[in-house]
Amino acid sequence: MAEKKWVYLFNELDKAIEYVGGDWDKVRGLLGGKGANLAEMTRIGVPVPPFFTVTTEACNAYQAEGKFPAGMWEQALAALKEVENAAGKKFGDPSNPLLVSCRSGAKFSMPGMMDTVLNIGLNDETAEGMVKLTGNDRFVYDSYRRLIQMFGSVVMGLPDEAFEDVLEEFKKEKGAKVDTDLSAEQLKELTGKFKAVVRREMGFDFPQDPLEQMKLATEAVFKSWNGKRAVDYRRATNIPDDLGTAVNIVAMVFGNMGWDSGTGVAFTRDPSTGERKLYGGYLLNAQGEDVVAGIRNTEPIENLEKELKPAYDQFIEICKKLELHYKDLQDVEFTIERGRLWMLQTRSGKRTARAAVKAAVDMVNEGLITKEEAILRVTPDQVDTLLHPQFDSSVIKEAKKAGRFFCSGVNASPGAAVGRIYFDADLAEKKHKEEGQDVIMVRPFTKPDDVHGMLASKGILTSEGGATSHAAVVARQFGVPCVVGASSVRIDLDKRLMEANGVVVHEGEWVSLDGGTGEVFTGKLALTVPSLEEQKDLLTLLEWADEYCAKPGIRQGASGPTVGLQVWANADYPKDAQRARSYGAKGIGLCRTEHMFFEPERLPIVQRMILAKTSEERTAALDELLPYQRADFEGLFEAMTGLPVIIRLIDPPLHEFLPSAEELQAQITAKRLSGDGLSSFVLGRGELKEVVELEKLLKAVEAMHESNPMMGLRGIRLSIVMPEIVEMQVRAIFEAAANVKLAGKDPHPEVMIPLTGHVNELKVIQPRLVEIARHVMEEKKVTFEYKFGTMIEIPRAAVTAAEIAEVAEFFSFGTNDLTQMTFGYSRDDAERSFLVKYVENGILPKNPFQTLDKDGVGRLMRMAVEDGRATRPSLEVGICGEHGGDPASIDFCHTIGQNYVSCSPFRVPVARLAAAHAALKYATGKQNTDK
Amino acid sequence: MAEKKWVYLFNELDKAIEYVGGDWDKVRGLLGGKGANLAEMTRIGVPVPPFFTVTTEACNAYQAEGKFPAGMWEQALAALKEVENAAGKKFGDPSNPLLVSCRSGAKFSMPGMMDTVLNIGLNDETAEGMVKLTGNDRFVYDSYRRLIQMFGSVVMGLPDEAFEDVLEEFKKEKGAKVDTDLSAEQLKELTGKFKAVVRREMGFDFPQDPLEQMKLATEAVFKSWNGKRAVDYRRATNIPDDLGTAVNIVAMVFGNMGWDSGTGVAFTRDPSTGERKLYGGYLLNAQGEDVVAGIRNTEPIENLEKELKPAYDQFIEICKKLELHYKDLQDVEFTIERGRLWMLQTRSGKRTARAAVKAAVDMVNEGLITKEEAILRVTPDQVDTLLHPQFDSSVIKEAKKAGRFFCSGVNASPGAAVGRIYFDADLAEKKHKEEGQDVIMVRPFTKPDDVHGMLASKGILTSEGGATSHAAVVARQFGVPCVVGASSVRIDLDKRLMEANGVVVHEGEWVSLDGGTGEVFTGKLALTVPSLEEQKDLLTLLEWADEYCAKPGIRQGASGPTVGLQVWANADYPKDAQRARSYGAKGIGLCRTEHMFFEPERLPIVQRMILAKTSEERTAALDELLPYQRADFEGLFEAMTGLPVIIRLIDPPLHEFLPSAEELQAQITAKRLSGDGLSSFVLGRGELKEVVELEKLLKAVEAMHESNPMMGLRGIRLSIVMPEIVEMQVRAIFEAAANVKLAGKDPHPEVMIPLTGHVNELKVIQPRLVEIARHVMEEKKVTFEYKFGTMIEIPRAAVTAAEIAEVAEFFSFGTNDLTQMTFGYSRDDAERSFLVKYVENGILPKNPFQTLDKDGVGRLMRMAVEDGRATRPSLEVGICGEHGGDPASIDFCHTIGQNYVSCSPFRVPVARLAAAHAALKYATGKQNTDK
Repeated sequence: MAEKKWVYLFNELDKAIEYVGGDWDKVRGLLGGKGANLAEMTRIGVPVPPFFTVTTEACNAYQAEGKFPAGMWEQALAALKEVENAAGKKFGDPSNPLLVSCRSGAKFSMPGMMDTVLNIGLNDETAEGMVKLTGNDRFVYDSYRRLIQMFGSVVMGLPDEAFEDVLEEFKKEKGAKVDTDLSAEQLKELTGKFKAVVRREMGFDFPQDPLEQMKLATEAVFKSWNGKRAVDYRRATNIPDDLGTAVNIVAMVFGNMGWDSGTGVAFTRDPSTGERKLYGGYLLNAQGEDVVAGIRNTEPIENLEKELKPAYDQFIEICKKLELHYKDLQDVEFTIERGRLWMLQTRSGKRTARAAVKAAVDMVNEGLITKEEAILRVTPDQVDTLLHPQFDSSVIKEAKKAGRFFCSGVNASPGAAVGRIYFDADLAEKKHKEEGQDVIMVRPFTKPDDVHGMLASKGILTSEGGATSHAAVVARQFGVPCVVGASSVRIDLDKRLMEANGVVVHEGEWVSLDGGTGEVFTGKLALTVPSLEEQKDLLTLLEWADEYCAKPGIRQGASGPTVGLQVWANADYPKDAQRARSYGAKGIGLCRTEHMFFEPERLPIVQRMILAKTSEERTAALDELLPYQRADFEGLFEAMTGLPVIIRLIDPPLHEFLPSAEELQAQITAKRLSGDGLSSFVLGRGELKEVVELEKLLKAVEAMHESNPMMGLRGIRLSIVMPEIVEMQVRAIFEAAANVKLAGKDPHPEVMIPLTGHVNELKVIQPRLVEIARHVMEEKKVTFEYKFGTMIEIPRAAVTAAEIAEVAEFFSFGTNDLTQMTFGYSRDDAERSFLVKYVENGILPKNPFQTLDKDGVGRLMRMAVEDGRATRPSLEVGICGEHGGDPASIDFCHTIGQNYVSCSPFRVPVARLAAAHAALKYATGKQNTDK
Repeated sequence: MAEKKWVYLFNELDKAIEYVGGDWDKVRGLLGGKGANLAEMTRIGVPVPPFFTVTTEACNAYQAEGKFPAGMWEQALAALKEVENAAGKKFGDPSNPLLVSCRSGAKFSMPGMMDTVLNIGLNDETAEGMVKLTGNDRFVYDSYRRLIQMFGSVVMGLPDEAFEDVLEEFKKEKGAKVDTDLSAEQLKELTGKFKAVVRREMGFDFPQDPLEQMKLATEAVFKSWNGKRAVDYRRATNIPDDLGTAVNIVAMVFGNMGWDSGTGVAFTRDPSTGERKLYGGYLLNAQGEDVVAGIRNTEPIENLEKELKPAYDQFIEICKKLELHYKDLQDVEFTIERGRLWMLQTRSGKRTARAAVKAAVDMVNEGLITKEEAILRVTPDQVDTLLHPQFDSSVIKEAKKAGRFFCSGVNASPGAAVGRIYFDADLAEKKHKEEGQDVIMVRPFTKPDDVHGMLASKGILTSEGGATSHAAVVARQFGVPCVVGASSVRIDLDKRLMEANGVVVHEGEWVSLDGGTGEVFTGKLALTVPSLEEQKDLLTLLEWADEYCAKPGIRQGASGPTVGLQVWANADYPKDAQRARSYGAKGIGLCRTEHMFFEPERLPIVQRMILAKTSEERTAALDELLPYQRADFEGLFEAMTGLPVIIRLIDPPLHEFLPSAEELQAQITAKRLSGDGLSSFVLGRGELKEVVELEKLLKAVEAMHESNPMMGLRGIRLSIVMPEIVEMQVRAIFEAAANVKLAGKDPHPEVMIPLTGHVNELKVIQPRLVEIARHVMEEKKVTFEYKFGTMIEIPRAAVTAAEIAEVAEFFSFGTNDLTQMTFGYSRDDAERSFLVKYVENGILPKNPFQTLDKDGVGRLMRMAVEDGRATRPSLEVGICGEHGGDPASIDFCHTIGQNYVSCSPFRVPVARLAAAHAALKYATGKQNTDK
């Protein structure tokens, strides 16, 4: 058996490709990103110094055995010979010495996390030889003293100060301000002092044997893979520990050999705007780390043309070549040694969201990449970033410097907001509506009847609750920036102020809040406000995405989805529906009718309906509500003409529409104690009557009390016990649709029944409702298509989907509740107590309320889709839980063959891209493994 | 194609068997139970009058078409010819008339639910002919007037009063007290009057054509299948509507042809005791309905020997023959016509639970049936009946007559109880302990800290709550008879009385409560108290059952269970374990450790532990609890030496161990208002301190508040946040096991972790606990086998069982919570609001908290067993939810391949029989379809 190949030469890329079976991703795994790119540049004729790569497999073997694997070092020595030949120099030969760098290079870039040693091969002899050869003793001893410092730090683990202190003292002694003020002789002297540092700190001399230098440096790079910095970085970025790093031994080229030499970094396009122009900087007579470390200020790259035109022209050509080859914005490093250009690195360039979009669209227009590639170049998170108002990072930096940081909490809904704080919903709404103020509502936590205040606010801050608390959910739904659970904040509702870390903010004062980072500042910070309409490139990209995600057609189960997911939106009001449509939604996946019940002029009617003693009283109240609901629905159908609108019938338990028992008790006590603070018999008759009414109400509320309201009398259960409400709602829906149709529009109502757990529940309710629908159409003498379906949000519904699909024409996964019940977590309780700890400690990989739990909840969903479609092949399946806007969850929804995902209007663009990503990923079998 | 056969003659049983493919059950389906049995008696040589049967298929065809199916009537006429030949008489022939009865007979007996007409074929001519033939004009006109009345009622739908009124007036007129006082001439006259009734009421004459009589009677029987009575009965007994009834046309034989004639019914063994002696009654010179209707008092069957010895001897022989043939206690009807015995019916006799057991065991000893057959002859419900104290039905009847019925509620825990009522747990316990009173605790509802009172009570009555409320669950668990949700009862805790329907019962007064029927009576009713030890036959039967259900061995998944389920018991205390063992439990499937925390001397320590500010304080309190827990466990392990004991670690949320916020608030208010009713500043220092303490406690309780505590911080979640408690518990378990082992016993501890939803939870906790277990064994220098496992009670746990089985060594289905979360029902809330309606309206076929929901919860369980065993083939799987004692649920547990079911000690005998039933049913492929 041939010995395992641990080392690949600069011209052995093909062997590496063959070894891994032709998979480029695996080549990067074997040679590391840097090694693979250097080899590829070599192959396409870009000037790269000769080098060889020790593989990641060697690194892993080293980690396992604690020493180089058998044969590795011998292969390295053989490769070194080839590098010597190619460079025309010889390692350790004083007459013509080859110097090398030893660079780490893992599969995924881990910038600054692992070690590099330059100028290996220099010792007292080769240094003298190089001086003879180059006549440039200044350069040689500058390089030598750098080697000793780097080697001391990286290989020997000496602190930088050990050398820096000596350098500083030496410069003072010599009257030098900066390093370049030192003469060649002085640098040589400094080299001697650095060698003395090594001797003093280590007890032995800096190794003079170049091969020993190379060996120790290689080992040091291997070891740095398991260094704390690197391990922490991998944890944070989900890079597996078992990848290992490769080591690249590269012939040194020198940017510090004089003023015809230099070094620089550049992006082939502007990484912050995406503009197609070279962007970068360079330094003449300098080594690479001077540029990276920012020790000297670099010159703009375009200035190089004047200084070293031939190298510059060649560099421009190479950048073009690299972009053409890699078909992406490149981040490159180069060195010019005595006028000759060498490329030392190329990689896909990190860029801002804006640049990512522009570059992707431009490259399609330039014919560089396909639309599919462009779609995959932009992440859904980048789209999200582009849609919310933002504080520029410079603004934040300045505010922090100025001590204006106030508190931080959970980043519940992204976007930046600036406004005056108000501590209750009514006041917030009033200040906004009547005085046009920008308002930030601050509450310990929020409840459904705070919604009007939340909608009037630019931002929301709560001191309690987690990422799926009421405040967080509503805020995301309505695109209001929101920070929740800022536990350092103490809110004093009596004194109308809040306080954190000793800073007090009074009601009416300004704060600035970043829902993307969870940070809150005092005063007003400057806002940057993007808009979708203005972002032509993004619009273009999303249109392309829609070609993959918005095709109509019924999905055929999990086995072979042939078309992508449509993106629909959750919208309760016509204005939300309009926005959703303008953001590209292809339907409304969830209209929550109960939000309409909370509006101030309706709530008293709703309460009368709930407290009705007889069916007649109840019907009378419902008759009053009907016109309101009908008007709401007319607006929705108009806005969504031609597209489906799913309206969910009433879902929450009725007690949510009544004041809480605590509230009532407090009111009663207050009334009883009013006057002289004694008992009730001194109350006036009017007051007494009020108390009696309140006590009646309290009794009704107490009778409705449930110990676990989540799992109580609501949804279809309520409709079975009290069908009058949903009968009114269905009448309102169909009257609205009929009116809209008669007005020439094209309504597509779909009625969704929540909380079904047993098919018999649907069998009791649905036919009654269908009957009403038919009746209305007869009355109005008009027909249109409609559907009746159900939420799948009870585990039993998923498990018995085959039966439920006998009745339901569509399923919509209510993954919020489905997650709650599948896990047995009460969402708010869990986020307040153990869930945070679970996610922190990795017991749960993610918060299952943010990203779908594929193994548990997802398995139930997959069962439901498969079983449901087995019964009813035309079954329409979607998701309307919050997961519908989460890219990872959208990916999963694609794999189980759903028809659409529905999310907040503000997330529709994000979801469109995510849906297209999923469609492309599974259509081509490609997995995007780039980091 | 041959015409379909609608009619089978008395000697065509083989044709019927052939037609249905040899399945006796289907023969009964085709010919009805009565027809099939008559044909079988004919075949084995028992004297049966000639007859033919019109099939249930004809009935169904009639229901569908509204008329007899083509060919049926012709086949009936042909069959009638054969009956004529066999009887030697001719239908409608005055010179030798054949009379027939027309009797319904469905697959399952529906006694009294459908119609029968006797004496068909009599008309003015044949009546005269019969008089000539028999010389018995009294008999003939008695028969004729009966025919007219029956025909009028059954076929024509006339009310019985139409005839009865005429009869009464006629008797008065003639000075006759009873029917038999009427002379032949008078009966003839009465016949004329009855014919006049028909003419008057119907507008036409009673039909004189015998074939018309037969035709109309047959149609009437068919129609009676869909009569209200029959439909209601089928609803109540779950008999399908599409079975249809057969019609039997049977040659009449007459027990009313003189004093050498008679008729009677008998059981081949005593149906109330099971004793092997003929039991029944007869009447001479009477027709069958006289016996059935109880119009005349019958003579004991043994007296017949003196009166008609040859017929009696023949009857004895036939009874023996029938028992031998059917191998079961028979319920027979016979008629003796002029000394000749005819059998008119035989069927499996209804019997009491006691008789069922005795007869089954006796028949095995007599060699009549096998042990397997004996086991299948007794239902689990019958075993249940035999184990609880009972009121005899006569006692109940009398009490109702005497107006002592008080109220009724949900029959939550079977058994009868008599005691004095007390309205709180402390008083109930005190009266029982200190005064030895028999106590019945009455509460609106119960809570965990009422348990000591419940345990001291003979019975429990609540006005609120459903079949799985706290009171119901605890009562069943401890075998205390219990009626819950008696909503007509108003409990006045201040006046210490309860009131229902105007009757008031004061504290300390006697009531009698039947937990099996849900009825409550005032005063003391006489009790019948059975005991398992004394019921030798039952003990024998259960030992036989154990041969099928208690074999050790690992079950192999759902596909092929080869051994039956073991029966284990849920027991928290040593005395429960002892009882469970004496009742035949093969292990403890659930010991709930938290019950131990509620005992009065421990609760303060528990509360101190919960409120601890530091881990040290907490550990100190736990150190105090450790000896208590260890002692509890020692008792358990001793009682169960040699058998497994599963101990569940702490499950409920901690706030259950603290007073409620309402309670505390009330105490604080009371204290503040004490003295002069004004504010707190006038409180004494001691009182002030108390208030401060209470307010601290209140704050802690409020901080623990959860909106859905069912789904909150409890079980393993609590253990991850606060591991000290379970660490103490595991130490106590293993110290106890070690001590017991060192004392020479054989402990088998299995530690059960509740509420797992993700395998990572177990991965965090279980290793820590195993470490403690090992450590204790090292300390004590002793080893024994143990297991660590988990409850499967969260839907996600069932869905991801494959992963959970990587860590857990056993699964125990907690089907109470699993049902709650799979359905999304909060048990107590649901039973109070919609669940009752759901079950009543058939939306749910059963209350899923009483009988496992196979389609939903059961599907998850099946997944869990299959996936869990795929990971760990040796996985031990059981159930410890309440369903473990429910026969239908036990059947399901068998089919999915569980190892054991665990239930309340009192249900162990029931479960043993149910487990054996399941084992036999699936081993032989037999399904017990008898009703």
